Amino acid sequence: MTESSYFDADTRVEQTGEGRYQGYIDPGWNIGDNPNGGYLLSVVTSALADVLPHPDPLSVTTHYLRPGTAGVACEVDVELIRTGRTLSTVRARLFQAGKQRLEVMAAYGDLSVPAGITSDITIPAPAIPSPEACFARDGKLQGIELAFAEKIDVMLSPETAVPGGGKAEVSGWIRFHDDRAPDPRALLLFCDSFPPSPFGRLGVLGWVPTIELTVHVRRRPAPGWIKARFVTDDLADGRMIESGCLWDSQEKLVAEARQLGLVRSGD
Amino acid sequence: MTESSYFDADTRVEQTGEGRYQGYIDPGWNIGDNPNGGYLLSVVTSALADVLPHPDPLSVTTHYLRPGTAGVACEVDVELIRTGRTLSTVRARLFQAGKQRLEVMAAYGDLSVPAGITSDITIPAPAIPSPEACFARDGKLQGIELAFAEKIDVMLSPETAVPGGGKAEVSGWIRFHDDRAPDPRALLLFCDSFPPSPFGRLGVLGWVPTIELTVHVRRRPAPGWIKARFVTDDLADGRMIESGCLWDSQEKLVAEARQLGLVRSGD
Repeated sequence: MTESSYFDADTRVEQTGEGRYQGYIDPGWNIGDNPNGGYLLSVVTSALADVLPHPDPLSVTTHYLRPGTAGVACEVDVELIRTGRTLSTVRARLFQAGKQRLEVMAAYGDLSVPAGITSDITIPAPAIPSPEACFARDGKLQGIELAFAEKIDVMLSPETAVPGGGKAEVSGWIRFHDDRAPDPRALLLFCDSFPPSPFGRLGVLGWVPTIELTVHVRRRPAPGWIKARFVTDDLADGRMIESGCLWDSQEKLVAEARQLGLVRSGD
Repeated sequence: MTESSYFDADTRVEQTGEGRYQGYIDPGWNIGDNPNGGYLLSVVTSALADVLPHPDPLSVTTHYLRPGTAGVACEVDVELIRTGRTLSTVRARLFQAGKQRLEVMAAYGDLSVPAGITSDITIPAPAIPSPEACFARDGKLQGIELAFAEKIDVMLSPETAVPGGGKAEVSGWIRFHDDRAPDPRALLLFCDSFPPSPFGRLGVLGWVPTIELTVHVRRRPAPGWIKARFVTDDLADGRMIESGCLWDSQEKLVAEARQLGLVRSGD
């Protein structure tokens, strides 16, 4: 953990009581006028890392109750629900100005300790053009400002970078702009950093609020670029299910993600 | 809702205080010595239906902290986190003998009210043999007693019903044995009623405990059989991700599910 990295500095929390933490929501992670949801969650996981005996987030579900506010403080409270030898289950909440923004439910364990049998069953990484042959994620895709492009490099595969190009899929690469190595906590952020996958089919979408996002971290990632693919499974009456996978530079599956989001308007 | 159905009778709860309910865990829903997890969740959703202003479970995440105990009472407590015009977010917990068994986090809404744009993006139903050409789920597949086969008909596609048959996939059909019509609450149970999908590749697996299961209900189901497919995405060091889909008798996608489970031992 490099203390001087953007990510570590901007998600730092200070303990203010038993299971109580204070942090600050930096405007540098905004998408449009709102802090990126993955960034808000990262402030919560910073508190969880301090509380929990197990190092790795195996399953993290976040309900986004209200948008966050950039440029002001936040409070995080943590309730340990159960902790055993191999697993801790925890609830955490993020508040700003007395209003709850995030509700988080997570199971943490230790990915370096086997919990049963192993197999060759996995999801292989897709072949996509190298990061150099991809296009940087740009606010224009959604018609919004993208402050967080200074913090994270998101490169989109040419096939999927075109609004209305035909596929309800986004693939590409992601890393911290300052080259901080990825870790399980960073993967949670990376699962919420790509443009909404329906835009390739439906065109510019504006802000697609996430109602709930669940991420399963599968392996600790090797250093380097993370490859990603997100697909819209189903979109009806504005309610979208998007499923995603992340792979590390060794082509190992490192995370799976699924979210329920709202697509209010198209082109 | 047929009051005389097994499902409605066996998941009935009685209010004992503000957000407090009491129920009973019927032994008829056991898989081996443990109550089926989907059945335990159904007792919780019975309480949620009483508390929440919105009818449909859009996103339900359950952490299974400890196995349930059949033949004794349970308590459910419900905490409303946020309720708005279109969405309610809620936490619920199931206890038996003072010990917490389930931790549930859910968002409820109204699937009959559009929340934005619609599209033709969905997951089409796979072609599988008719229920009559399938095999009934049988405890022998896992080397356990299967009491709940008296309550639910689970029919497995011949291609995927063979332990060690090659594919880490289970597909088939499901309905209540007494023909109660499926509804969103029943879909949550149906997402946790098939044998673990790795058994087609790895053979008899015994009990595969679920750590966490998230279900997204997509549409209210039409009456009749529900078609289902579950696939193991990734299995390493005993930690499995299984993703599933349910379709109704009109071939519409009605639910998606994903769970983190433990595969402790193989054949």
